[in-house]
Amino acid sequence: MGIEKREVPFVVVKRLPRYYRYLGELLRQGITRISSGELSSKMGVTASQIRQDFNCFGGFGQQGYGYNVEKLHQEIAKILGLTHGYKTIIIGAGHLGHALANHTNFAKRGFELVGIFDKNPEVIGTEINSLSVMAMEELEDFCSSNRVDIAILALPKKAIVEVVPRLVAAGIKGLWNFSYTDLAVPDDVAVENVHLSDGLMTLSYKLTEKQKNGD
Amino acid sequence: MGIEKREVPFVVVKRLPRYYRYLGELLRQGITRISSGELSSKMGVTASQIRQDFNCFGGFGQQGYGYNVEKLHQEIAKILGLTHGYKTIIIGAGHLGHALANHTNFAKRGFELVGIFDKNPEVIGTEINSLSVMAMEELEDFCSSNRVDIAILALPKKAIVEVVPRLVAAGIKGLWNFSYTDLAVPDDVAVENVHLSDGLMTLSYKLTEKQKNGD
Repeated sequence: MGIEKREVPFVVVKRLPRYYRYLGELLRQGITRISSGELSSKMGVTASQIRQDFNCFGGFGQQGYGYNVEKLHQEIAKILGLTHGYKTIIIGAGHLGHALANHTNFAKRGFELVGIFDKNPEVIGTEINSLSVMAMEELEDFCSSNRVDIAILALPKKAIVEVVPRLVAAGIKGLWNFSYTDLAVPDDVAVENVHLSDGLMTLSYKLTEKQKNGD
Repeated sequence: MGIEKREVPFVVVKRLPRYYRYLGELLRQGITRISSGELSSKMGVTASQIRQDFNCFGGFGQQGYGYNVEKLHQEIAKILGLTHGYKTIIIGAGHLGHALANHTNFAKRGFELVGIFDKNPEVIGTEINSLSVMAMEELEDFCSSNRVDIAILALPKKAIVEVVPRLVAAGIKGLWNFSYTDLAVPDDVAVENVHLSDGLMTLSYKLTEKQKNGD
């Protein structure tokens, strides 16, 4: 892919979703240009880090003119793959699956939620976000006829073992894993593990620091 | 607090929950010592970064002997404030609140979930994890008699505006915020905002890179 290919360090990649959200916010406010200094104070990141980060994928700033918000937003969307319109399914229609279907703004981030699956007969057929929950037996057929890219794993650890191989065999290329367990998948399958409690621990740190400083 | 106080850079702090989880895993496997090299290959972080990070809070390694897993685990717990046993409540007993009450392993991370609140009469009085959902009217009395430290905000954006000031007035010092909106709170209140879709965007990046490399 010659010129398309750029080397973006993973620490920078980890910051891209946040930049993407902020730039989207600016666009909604009708702001078309912003300096690294202004962006810096809004985001609590140093201006020099912002400049370095944006240089990783071509800059988009002009000395003295700031950044073109829309171009930058589009470029980050492209790097993050949000422009692909990845098709997504949720496995597990329990409280977590339900919450994810309702709360995560899939469409806004370029993901298309096309199906929700569960093995519980009481849940199958119920509607979540105008999608009817499907039975696990329908998984393979659905994935192949809909060319699904991403599966969100919102089911317990012990259920994972048999589901993941089926997803991989069905051609799923990305797993967003809420099951708190390591997944063994082939090299061409991407995995992102979610550890919700990490955020709670970070909060605990901040709280503890504030209380120390308040002493 | 003189000698207790150490300067740990926030980038290091952000990595502590992950170290804490890995070290806990090693303890459960009965491993008492580990070298930075071994830890490095398990965690996908360079050995020199691990050494630098651990030096921020006193080291705990001995040249050639590796790290004492239990001591390190305890020290990180202390820095993260997990040894305080912070009392925690969840505001919002919808799908997200329900999922958080069930999935996040509060006790294991040192947090005590003491109450769940909702304003929906149909939900009030139902049981989640042997806690009976309370009415929002009970919030202030409950917080003051139970000395609650942390509130988890699992409710919609629009409901946040009136709830946060009540929590702050009731003495809550930490907010774990799932509402996708910025909170205005006094300086002595710590906030950690959760942006679930950041993980999905990171997955999308990985997936896109793998597909490029597979071309």
